[in-house]
Amino acid sequence: MARVYNFNAGPAALPLEVLEKAQAEMLDFAGTGMSVMEISHRSKEFQGVIDDAEACVRRLMGVSDDYAVLFLQGGASLQFAMIPMNLRREGKTADYVDTGSWASKAIKEGKIGGSANVAWSGKDENYVRIPKQEELKLTPGGEYLHICSNETIGGIRWAEFPNSEAPLIADMSSEIMSRVIDVNKFGMIYAGAQKNIGPSGLCLVIIRKDLIERAPETVPIFLRYKTHADDGSLYNTPNTWGVYVLKLVMEWMESLGGIAAIQKINEDKAAALYAVIDSSDFWQCPVERESRSIMNVVWRLPSEELEERFVSEAKKAGMVGLKGHRSVGGIRASIYNAVPKAAIDALVAFMKEFEKKNG
Amino acid sequence: MARVYNFNAGPAALPLEVLEKAQAEMLDFAGTGMSVMEISHRSKEFQGVIDDAEACVRRLMGVSDDYAVLFLQGGASLQFAMIPMNLRREGKTADYVDTGSWASKAIKEGKIGGSANVAWSGKDENYVRIPKQEELKLTPGGEYLHICSNETIGGIRWAEFPNSEAPLIADMSSEIMSRVIDVNKFGMIYAGAQKNIGPSGLCLVIIRKDLIERAPETVPIFLRYKTHADDGSLYNTPNTWGVYVLKLVMEWMESLGGIAAIQKINEDKAAALYAVIDSSDFWQCPVERESRSIMNVVWRLPSEELEERFVSEAKKAGMVGLKGHRSVGGIRASIYNAVPKAAIDALVAFMKEFEKKNG
Repeated sequence: MARVYNFNAGPAALPLEVLEKAQAEMLDFAGTGMSVMEISHRSKEFQGVIDDAEACVRRLMGVSDDYAVLFLQGGASLQFAMIPMNLRREGKTADYVDTGSWASKAIKEGKIGGSANVAWSGKDENYVRIPKQEELKLTPGGEYLHICSNETIGGIRWAEFPNSEAPLIADMSSEIMSRVIDVNKFGMIYAGAQKNIGPSGLCLVIIRKDLIERAPETVPIFLRYKTHADDGSLYNTPNTWGVYVLKLVMEWMESLGGIAAIQKINEDKAAALYAVIDSSDFWQCPVERESRSIMNVVWRLPSEELEERFVSEAKKAGMVGLKGHRSVGGIRASIYNAVPKAAIDALVAFMKEFEKKNG
Repeated sequence: MARVYNFNAGPAALPLEVLEKAQAEMLDFAGTGMSVMEISHRSKEFQGVIDDAEACVRRLMGVSDDYAVLFLQGGASLQFAMIPMNLRREGKTADYVDTGSWASKAIKEGKIGGSANVAWSGKDENYVRIPKQEELKLTPGGEYLHICSNETIGGIRWAEFPNSEAPLIADMSSEIMSRVIDVNKFGMIYAGAQKNIGPSGLCLVIIRKDLIERAPETVPIFLRYKTHADDGSLYNTPNTWGVYVLKLVMEWMESLGGIAAIQKINEDKAAALYAVIDSSDFWQCPVERESRSIMNVVWRLPSEELEERFVSEAKKAGMVGLKGHRSVGGIRASIYNAVPKAAIDALVAFMKEFEKKNG
């Protein structure tokens, strides 16, 4: 068995320790004589899992009792739909910032069933930067302001979050728990788990409790936040395996010292990559410097042919997932929490060698 | 490691062979050097998994090209909401048969945003039987007829399916692939995977292609069947682990000879249990004989105290999940495909012994 260095954008690398634990417990979880997939979501054993998962999320991110922590299904894409259904009242407008592929998907759903104002769009500039506060054209009395805090495809992120009178809502799928943030600044934070905190099929939602009450009764029961908040994410059967793996990832994060410690590691990992990119004209990072993501590092080579060779030779050297998204091309290294420093060291060494041979 | 006999209602038993395979591949799926949870849903390896899963479903159930096979999230509960949103057009009525707890949950969602007619309800009789065809009060020109083909809690099932001019839609969560059915009789079949075909967090939807087109543009993009059908269930990241485990379960089913062979085993398993129940007044099955489920067998003992003792002594003897649902009490043995004959033999022996001691 040879594990590779995994730079996939999502689903993405999981900590080896987490996989080994899940493997060891596969036939007998916590002495039940069953896999965690085979136990009832109403059992005390699973209640323990989901309680621990929530407690870990609250501890790690500093989530107060003013917020509900929900484990839903459907990924961020279902949230794109649920947010306007639940949080934009009749006749009101919601603001969206268009920073790239994921932000625009949210906007597409936001335009259904009500009014969505695009407060700023980076489309004409090819999504290479995050706007400044003064560039945002916010709606007076807007229902919420939606951002994607880190664009997985474009490789840009909000280094600082915008100010807004309306509740700020952030899709943090590709950077959740990669850096310390102040949850109290947000009305809602959500993240598909499959990039930084678990497997796919699970979405973490952190929502201020007063917002949960906004949804009108015309919203289907299953699609109301209230339904899931009232039942502790057990209104129906959740993705029990997903919650279990997320819990293991949370415990692994705590064992590393929590998010502040992990942020330091992440910043070092990203700095090492950007240092190589900035060291020569052979590499070009299309992203404005202040907007650079520390999770998804994107860059170009002098030609598409060289980019293809780069991806293919990297793969032979045991580094996978480096191809940029098909919509933008180029190279992308997704260096989530679970991507070890050793993977970055290997990539940096490979890049230097590749430049020497092809530069 | 001592595995137990697992009679859980869902999430429920998985085949040991499936768990062992998932365990063996946990750190290195198909030579990728990654877990299946760590690979992109757009990779050729995962495309292989989802293609195989779909092909297995089509082969096992005999699903023709007139139907789309979708792997969605949100369980049957999201389908309760999506069905009326997608398939009941403005001003039209949908028919529902109320056979128990799950059918009524579907009806509750059906009443939102349009007209739902309850064509028959077994509520006043405590849900002990399936109605006869002539009892159904169907709406002329109704949009669809919704049934729950097997009620997990009440332990009743449609031995034969109703006739209807409107497309027949069945929630088969607790009996999917337990017996041979004619898919062509249905407009749509759906099932949360966590009872008979996989882990939770995954919902199998088999829908006639012409019905997919019904949804108006006011339905959020993510909640349209068309969105998922057009993209082969890869509009967004699916529950990749769930699809993978489902695929392993499908392969295990094919190795047993397919659904006809499994149906025979299931009928024998159920018959063995009902034979004990019918053998003495100590046990009482509340369900009408023709409506008895072969997946969820429910029965009562002379007192609640004896029922508690039964559940607790069974657990000590390595048989778990036998407590009836909290809403109805009593005993329930869920004997899905993955529950081996040996578990039934053990339960039958235990019941005989228990009656001898307490009868």
